[in-house]
Amino acid sequence: MIIDGHSHVTLPVEEHIKAMDAAGIDKTVLFSTTFHPEINRNFTEVRSSMEFLNDLLAGKKGSMIEARQKSVSELMDAIKQYPDRYIGFGAVPAGLELKPTLQYVAENIQKNNLSGMGEFTLGSGQIYLLKNIFEASKEFRNLPIWIHAFFPLTFQDIKEISELAKDYSETPVILGHLGGSNWLETVALVKEISNMYLDTSAFYSTFVLQCIINEVPEKCFFGVDRPFGDLLLSKNAVLQSAKTSAVANAVLGENIAKLLNVA
Amino acid sequence: MIIDGHSHVTLPVEEHIKAMDAAGIDKTVLFSTTFHPEINRNFTEVRSSMEFLNDLLAGKKGSMIEARQKSVSELMDAIKQYPDRYIGFGAVPAGLELKPTLQYVAENIQKNNLSGMGEFTLGSGQIYLLKNIFEASKEFRNLPIWIHAFFPLTFQDIKEISELAKDYSETPVILGHLGGSNWLETVALVKEISNMYLDTSAFYSTFVLQCIINEVPEKCFFGVDRPFGDLLLSKNAVLQSAKTSAVANAVLGENIAKLLNVA
Repeated sequence: MIIDGHSHVTLPVEEHIKAMDAAGIDKTVLFSTTFHPEINRNFTEVRSSMEFLNDLLAGKKGSMIEARQKSVSELMDAIKQYPDRYIGFGAVPAGLELKPTLQYVAENIQKNNLSGMGEFTLGSGQIYLLKNIFEASKEFRNLPIWIHAFFPLTFQDIKEISELAKDYSETPVILGHLGGSNWLETVALVKEISNMYLDTSAFYSTFVLQCIINEVPEKCFFGVDRPFGDLLLSKNAVLQSAKTSAVANAVLGENIAKLLNVA
Repeated sequence: MIIDGHSHVTLPVEEHIKAMDAAGIDKTVLFSTTFHPEINRNFTEVRSSMEFLNDLLAGKKGSMIEARQKSVSELMDAIKQYPDRYIGFGAVPAGLELKPTLQYVAENIQKNNLSGMGEFTLGSGQIYLLKNIFEASKEFRNLPIWIHAFFPLTFQDIKEISELAKDYSETPVILGHLGGSNWLETVALVKEISNMYLDTSAFYSTFVLQCIINEVPEKCFFGVDRPFGDLLLSKNAVLQSAKTSAVANAVLGENIAKLLNVA
């Protein structure tokens, strides 16, 4: 089974399913989103979307409780439409006190039977805001936590994530985008810490992708990051980079199926 | 004609030519290199190569005059072996005084009939070291200058490059890797400054690639950055992203053929 381990809700949802069919992708771990660059009609609109994203990645948008709740509701609509194709991860505001965090997770993640929390897009220096997210994971049967770990995060931020992962050793922690330009040091951390994993989306070098998936094949989850990535090009990159079919199968689906109990 | 506008000498050279044939790439603008990750046999060796690269990108290696001269000699060997397939760009040490810079360019670039200078891999805050490189371009018939503009460069660095490009308005300046995570602001600069261009290699999002090549098709050069990129995956990404065949043709070869007078 081939599973795209990381893509966002893209509109219209039917088009995503068609693209999955065309690329031979059986299921997608679907993430909520607070903006839709895929429906921008021109460069000016894309620029507005990207400026929003950059503010988001810089941690300038705060916890955005309302926008995140709306995005979870959009996510649930998509999952209800295609329950056999989608597995959901829901956005949770970081930096809230413990009680409202637990309440939010109960109402938005647990009640909706979502499989994990994320994508967390924190600014550099803001990793401490995840503390109560890890507490919530512990409270709710070790819900996996998915964290954007490309630009603008530094290796110091990734190291702070790894400290949290060590403290909450039953919580699966998925680092998005292979750790970005910090991939070399990130792979060393992932080797050492059993509950840390890597998502392959947004790789910028097939040489790097090849090095990583063959070095830690059991720790990598194939991801596309739609609308930013392309299903078929991403899948072909993994197929071409894997040295054996066992590596390809593990990365393209088996690993995440095992983690999330996907049947 | 399809031209890979940016790849490094990879060993053995015959394998590169075979890969170009297989991917339908007619010519490659070939850059010298001071290290060869493609021949590393395992992850430990790759790690050593990457640590070298990271030091290089952080500007910690200095001007490396000897290593660069050796790399130009290796480049010339490859070009002499396949003169119809390769067009050469040669490394030049940045930060030297004007006289030794001009002397180096005369002996290594002009004498070897190379078509441009680069790849320049400067640390953040080191752009001023390129001043004499631009002077040398002016002296030697506006030799194009190719600058790595992904991590670790910031937008401030890219802006400083654009100031040099404005001061030397006859010198073509190629920004590598679409400006990395600063692509949005970089596209705005490239629109404004007629002698600035973008190389598409190391794109980390096909959505971003698509936005850029269709917005400024006449300013983009297809690049693979072998050994880091894959010829066919990179070419397919451009083909799939281009909205018209005119855009695809311009980006995949016509633009750079015009700039470098490739027949």
